[in-house]
Amino acid sequence: MPQITAVTVEDVRFPTSLTADGSDAMNKDGDYSAAYVVLHTDGVDGVGAPLAGHGLTFTIGRGNDIVAAAAVHQAQLLVGLDVATMAADMGAVYRLLTSDSQLRWLGPEKGVVHLSLAAVLNASWDLVARLADKPVWRLLVDMSPEQLVDIADLRYLSDALTRDEALAILRAKEGTKAARLAELDRTGYPAYTTSAGWLGYGDDKLRRLCQEAVDTGYGYVKLKVGANLDDDIRRCAIAREILGPDRNLMIDANQVWDVGQAIEWVTALAQFKPLWIEEPTSPDDILGHAAVRRAVAPIGVATGEHCHNRVMFKQLFQAEAIDFCQLDTGRLASINEIVAVLLLAAKFDVPVCPHAGGVGLCEMVQHVSVLDYVAISGDLTNRVTEFVDHLHEHFTDPCIIRDTGSGSGYVLPSQPGYSTRMRTESVALYRFPDGHYWAATDPTTVSSPEAAYVIAGGKATPAGR
Amino acid sequence: MPQITAVTVEDVRFPTSLTADGSDAMNKDGDYSAAYVVLHTDGVDGVGAPLAGHGLTFTIGRGNDIVAAAAVHQAQLLVGLDVATMAADMGAVYRLLTSDSQLRWLGPEKGVVHLSLAAVLNASWDLVARLADKPVWRLLVDMSPEQLVDIADLRYLSDALTRDEALAILRAKEGTKAARLAELDRTGYPAYTTSAGWLGYGDDKLRRLCQEAVDTGYGYVKLKVGANLDDDIRRCAIAREILGPDRNLMIDANQVWDVGQAIEWVTALAQFKPLWIEEPTSPDDILGHAAVRRAVAPIGVATGEHCHNRVMFKQLFQAEAIDFCQLDTGRLASINEIVAVLLLAAKFDVPVCPHAGGVGLCEMVQHVSVLDYVAISGDLTNRVTEFVDHLHEHFTDPCIIRDTGSGSGYVLPSQPGYSTRMRTESVALYRFPDGHYWAATDPTTVSSPEAAYVIAGGKATPAGR
Repeated sequence: MPQITAVTVEDVRFPTSLTADGSDAMNKDGDYSAAYVVLHTDGVDGVGAPLAGHGLTFTIGRGNDIVAAAAVHQAQLLVGLDVATMAADMGAVYRLLTSDSQLRWLGPEKGVVHLSLAAVLNASWDLVARLADKPVWRLLVDMSPEQLVDIADLRYLSDALTRDEALAILRAKEGTKAARLAELDRTGYPAYTTSAGWLGYGDDKLRRLCQEAVDTGYGYVKLKVGANLDDDIRRCAIAREILGPDRNLMIDANQVWDVGQAIEWVTALAQFKPLWIEEPTSPDDILGHAAVRRAVAPIGVATGEHCHNRVMFKQLFQAEAIDFCQLDTGRLASINEIVAVLLLAAKFDVPVCPHAGGVGLCEMVQHVSVLDYVAISGDLTNRVTEFVDHLHEHFTDPCIIRDTGSGSGYVLPSQPGYSTRMRTESVALYRFPDGHYWAATDPTTVSSPEAAYVIAGGKATPAGR
Repeated sequence: MPQITAVTVEDVRFPTSLTADGSDAMNKDGDYSAAYVVLHTDGVDGVGAPLAGHGLTFTIGRGNDIVAAAAVHQAQLLVGLDVATMAADMGAVYRLLTSDSQLRWLGPEKGVVHLSLAAVLNASWDLVARLADKPVWRLLVDMSPEQLVDIADLRYLSDALTRDEALAILRAKEGTKAARLAELDRTGYPAYTTSAGWLGYGDDKLRRLCQEAVDTGYGYVKLKVGANLDDDIRRCAIAREILGPDRNLMIDANQVWDVGQAIEWVTALAQFKPLWIEEPTSPDDILGHAAVRRAVAPIGVATGEHCHNRVMFKQLFQAEAIDFCQLDTGRLASINEIVAVLLLAAKFDVPVCPHAGGVGLCEMVQHVSVLDYVAISGDLTNRVTEFVDHLHEHFTDPCIIRDTGSGSGYVLPSQPGYSTRMRTESVALYRFPDGHYWAATDPTTVSSPEAAYVIAGGKATPAGR
């Protein structure tokens, strides 16, 4: 039986700051990056290739090395484990990786050590799915309610969701899974695009990309807002004009506002009838999101890409703070924590619209959304999963988006694993700082800190300016 | 004028797991550690020694290297800054260190990058206080209300505390600062001890240490609970017997319970009349703490050592979730964020009883408690600051506890800085892994992960057992 023989962790960075892809009011110049974990084994997969597990978490550049270092600490606990035994008890694998109280102190369950934990567990899920020769979504959908609850981390949730309630939610959907799966096989899982609306794009580019989104079948388009209100009004007007009255426009402030400011700003954009305002304020501010939601209804409130664990989501639901749950597959501790959040969302009847984009997030969320619809929520109402069209070329099994007539959707992944295996040549090119790309690049041409700063007039500015 | 010329960051670890000092229900075998930052300058201090700033954050062992690596990223932004300019505008220094959106992604404002930020900012405050030839508490108490508000990070707080409200709180205490300072100079700041109650200590040691605490003038003693209810009942009975009916007993569960379980367990210990239950559940669970508080009153609820930022404290106050605010000087982003939390606590009338112990936390909290009483809360009611009697010998200006007749208290620090300078010989001995102690130590004699694990029966166990 195959065993894990070694782990490697790579710091992979793409120079996206050069093109303003991914720019928003908080994050102006990210270099989209992955802390990429590979669990090597002495076995072979279904087609006779070396069996390995591949997982990642997403960052936006500097500090990706810190996350990679944390992943090394955690991943080395897995060396020597038998892969079939792991596959039979992924709850125990999760508890092994979260059992180190010394590392727990650095969170707990948040920040760098939780991001790295996501990468290591994502690799573990990729590995056991490859052993089973199934995509991760299929592996999960094939599980019984008891098996799914056994892998879920329900700690600290019992005041909102008991194990029995979780089982009841799953059992209620058990008999009709096949019909929903057949439906998704025909239609794909509904998707929306953020590719059009980055803050660093000019009006002409915004107009062209909105038109392209409409032409390729998207019924939903998302715009970044929050840097300048006049600009936002002009950009929302352009988007709404092209989308027409029936397609959905979403807006995303990436945490730049205080609570009162969020309410004022969103009220000023209400004329463009956004479906939701995303990340109006600090991702930690549960009560703040609830206050914004009460004030801007019927505009919905969405958050989750920086919601760091299931305890925070529990409270967002308990406080009736959000209309859309945007969990993130690189920030939550992989399937084990995601299943807990999907169960909570189902209990509180909040639609899950996962955050994607970045590096590899689209590849992962498609598995999560299929699991949610087929086995947990059983509902597509108000569900739409983010899609951003960049960096997919670096994966061996990239996600596929297709217009199926009723709008664009994610095609069900067909290959074994979590779709998180990066191409060897991409890693060799973009490994930081010694990959071929970075070794040949003048670092001052991409986003980097200034060499020196001076303090004057209440702020710090680069010394050279 | 002196400038910062270089930064060094050391990973310093003390083998406390050997003696069970610091053991509790969540953290059984920590090796108390510090990520220790030194900001070197080309200047001299008030006695002609090289001027430098010294700061740290506290961890419990593994991963201290990760925090140190993050601190290097942040601290190098300070190289080249003029120290007098920093001293005049510590708000700008804070904004410089928090301005990197790429590093922000790894939190935001939580986990490893926030711990490391605390270390770098603590060193910055030590530096500017040494330049002024004052202890940090004196530097802060001498500031005007406007100056204090200018250094405070009020972002995301305006729905609970506006700048004008903050100024009003400070102005109301401005005229009577001198009288309170004279009082503290006589009495010290009230302290309590946790040294007696670690979970790994046997009954005889517990009894002896409780008696010592009483004999040395402590009116408050804290016990760790949460591993076994029968043990807790026996241990609380011992402590209460020795303390008598009038001294205060506190209990601390270190996050081991779900909300319902916390309520049941604390109810079973209510017979021993604890003043507070500390960390009854996940530190992220604001609504959970509020539920526990409602259920166990009049026993108070205390938390904060793992409360990761001011936005979480804001909500703990808004939700009426806690009776005691236990902010942590290694987890919040130093004085800039701490002042914001002290102002919030004053507005919501919640006493601040800072968390201490660890490495260097007692040295720092004494400055914070003096600031709170003299300039912000103006109140000692229900205020008592933690003291744990270990590892002080590694600091050049260790805190001093004295029984002044009305109970034990922290003596006001008299030396310039934040009391966070470690002895050179301590760093040389305990630097990990190459300090003399660690180089000469068999790693298997202290807490370390097992070399291999097997999964069986729903859990992972070390392969050798």
